[in-house]
Amino acid sequence: MSDNTPSTSRRRFLSGAGLAAAGLVAGKASAQTAPKPDPAIVNIPDWSKNLGEGVQARPYGSPSKFEKSTIRRDVEWLTVSRESSVNFTPLHALDSFITPSGLAFERHHGGAPDVDPGQYRLMINGLVDKPLVFTLEDLKRMPGRTNRAYFLECAANSGMEWKGAQLNGCQFTHGMIHNVWYTGVPLKALLDEAGVKTNGKWLLAEGADASGMSRSIPIEKAMKDCLVAWGMNGEMLRPEQGYPVRLVVPGWEGNMWVKWLRRLEVGDQPWHHREETSKYTDLLADGRSRRFTWIMDAKSVVTNPSPQAPLKVKGANVLSGVAWSGRGTIKRVDVSLDGGRNWATARIDGPALPLSMTRFYFDFDWDGRELLVQSRAMDDTGYVQPTKNELRKVRGLNSIYHNNGIQTWLVRANGETENVEIS
Amino acid sequence: MSDNTPSTSRRRFLSGAGLAAAGLVAGKASAQTAPKPDPAIVNIPDWSKNLGEGVQARPYGSPSKFEKSTIRRDVEWLTVSRESSVNFTPLHALDSFITPSGLAFERHHGGAPDVDPGQYRLMINGLVDKPLVFTLEDLKRMPGRTNRAYFLECAANSGMEWKGAQLNGCQFTHGMIHNVWYTGVPLKALLDEAGVKTNGKWLLAEGADASGMSRSIPIEKAMKDCLVAWGMNGEMLRPEQGYPVRLVVPGWEGNMWVKWLRRLEVGDQPWHHREETSKYTDLLADGRSRRFTWIMDAKSVVTNPSPQAPLKVKGANVLSGVAWSGRGTIKRVDVSLDGGRNWATARIDGPALPLSMTRFYFDFDWDGRELLVQSRAMDDTGYVQPTKNELRKVRGLNSIYHNNGIQTWLVRANGETENVEIS
Repeated sequence: MSDNTPSTSRRRFLSGAGLAAAGLVAGKASAQTAPKPDPAIVNIPDWSKNLGEGVQARPYGSPSKFEKSTIRRDVEWLTVSRESSVNFTPLHALDSFITPSGLAFERHHGGAPDVDPGQYRLMINGLVDKPLVFTLEDLKRMPGRTNRAYFLECAANSGMEWKGAQLNGCQFTHGMIHNVWYTGVPLKALLDEAGVKTNGKWLLAEGADASGMSRSIPIEKAMKDCLVAWGMNGEMLRPEQGYPVRLVVPGWEGNMWVKWLRRLEVGDQPWHHREETSKYTDLLADGRSRRFTWIMDAKSVVTNPSPQAPLKVKGANVLSGVAWSGRGTIKRVDVSLDGGRNWATARIDGPALPLSMTRFYFDFDWDGRELLVQSRAMDDTGYVQPTKNELRKVRGLNSIYHNNGIQTWLVRANGETENVEIS
Repeated sequence: MSDNTPSTSRRRFLSGAGLAAAGLVAGKASAQTAPKPDPAIVNIPDWSKNLGEGVQARPYGSPSKFEKSTIRRDVEWLTVSRESSVNFTPLHALDSFITPSGLAFERHHGGAPDVDPGQYRLMINGLVDKPLVFTLEDLKRMPGRTNRAYFLECAANSGMEWKGAQLNGCQFTHGMIHNVWYTGVPLKALLDEAGVKTNGKWLLAEGADASGMSRSIPIEKAMKDCLVAWGMNGEMLRPEQGYPVRLVVPGWEGNMWVKWLRRLEVGDQPWHHREETSKYTDLLADGRSRRFTWIMDAKSVVTNPSPQAPLKVKGANVLSGVAWSGRGTIKRVDVSLDGGRNWATARIDGPALPLSMTRFYFDFDWDGRELLVQSRAMDDTGYVQPTKNELRKVRGLNSIYHNNGIQTWLVRANGETENVEIS
């Protein structure tokens, strides 16, 4: 990474960072060098002079009033109604590999219902020895409870970008993803209780919302690592995330993670509902469609800088982003500041967990020149995130789903950042 | 673990768990065995018939209305005012090893101030080559940013229990703890920028709240693993957790993790402020006091069952709890159902991270007999959590702080659970 990214040294951080001069602080500045006093230091702020809020002011806490712009946002023209729409995660304003529950993207097909956990039931029927009905309390008493961090990405994430740069901000280009700790029991434990018959090869997962969302899932995946989950990030699921129970289908497209899960039917072949036919298929250039493209391939995006989080000053800066793979663990992320001509390896901030978002950082000095910022994820299968043009060569231009191509941000000399396509 | 804890088998879960009979579901029940229909299955619920909330109903999400009782609670008689009080984490209602930000216990000495991040400044002064002042943006541009999960436990957690069982619920006996992912930069990086003089051996960390909270910290700890953090669980710190910046002092008592951090002074000896003298010292039986008892020793508590979360049915049940150690990583947790006569090893639900809370489970069958439930943590230094009586023998009965003794819950035959002492 030759000219754009010298290693960051102490000298560089001090010279470039605009730290307040020390003289003022220590009272040693000579008259001729004394900088203008910083009012934030000279004046004692009100919060140091007056009592703050007491402990029962917020029995359930909320963010600072200064963080009001860090919220989920929708794109109104994208869908016909807000009950069948999407609310995007503000990736540019977040850090770590965990998405706060209140900011996790949501997608509904009939609005988010308010399910009474006391009235909640989960039925297992179809090709089983003994059909069963579980209450929420039954699920919580099942042996084998576990907590896992998994990413959930909508297959349509970045879908608007197939035809070129469209949405100006990673919240909108990549915000149909979240990564939380799920609490639940292995789906296998429930299916084993019911006893899947030898001809039981597929599962229909069905939601209790007004849309009755359903997806067909192969029994091998159900038995391998799916969870029936009631918790996220230490507390109960949020209503828009399927309260009180959702399916967790690690590494696979988000649409299959059926929320407000009410029924699991075992069958000998897949069901061909809306989500297996008119939706969640990829129309290729020759008129054929890819189907059952469940796995989310390795992908990454630089969240800072990005259009909603421009660069502000020259000198020391931290480039940051997230990477994930539905096939395994992120092993390496490379970043480029010149549109892919030169690459450097970013620092992965552990733990890098399988099928989980992974945070990466790249400390660099910015001299004020224009940048073309990119990131490229690699997983432990050896898969390398492709460019958008490489994807288009194989899949054509008709697709909506499964765009995991490399994203490019143009950082202008004034720090403003835009979504761009480069050839 | 002889009689109380047979291994859980499929047969036992089915026989003991009260799952709804299958016949109703599959329509195969004969007339003479048909159980009473479950109205929650027979009637289609309203949430399956009507649209739910749209995506912009909650740009920042909140829990289900059915979770209103899962909140932080205080004990009014414990302190003279709510601006100098504590709000306890509802451990009994949570799972995973992460504490939701909205439910993380809070302790203030002058209320939680609402600090303007634009006006925020952090000063480093004293025995340094170059005193410095950092803005929040300066901190965010520092090289070496990282995310770590650490527990923060108040030294007074379980302090009321020194003299015997007092508070009836793990929210109150053990709820002065939380465990979140912190985003920040190593304190060492900031101190290296300022250049600590060779006689700089101690650090005074000072808060910007009305109480001007301060603690003395040895420079070795500051350089080893402390963080200057602005993020928790992926988003900015909450106001009551120090927004916009707090100190993170892994494994050491929570009082040292100065919130609303405004100043770090380097000195050649410790300061002897309130928190080093009249508070945070342990008066022993012989009249001497232990001082500078910073490290939180290994500890654990069973969160379920517990007084606020009694057992509800016989048969399959999940015992669960959390363990932590300020000296390292939790390696093993044993549980007893008979007051410490027999022990079995619980299942640790990974990842077990150093200086982080760790979740454990123990799947067991309850036959309805009275239980005396305990847990005992062991860390990777070989330290084993002591009984309360073992602690009292060494420390006497005058202490408030550093009670890491084994907790006992009595589960009665009807499932109700109490805080008890056993000799």
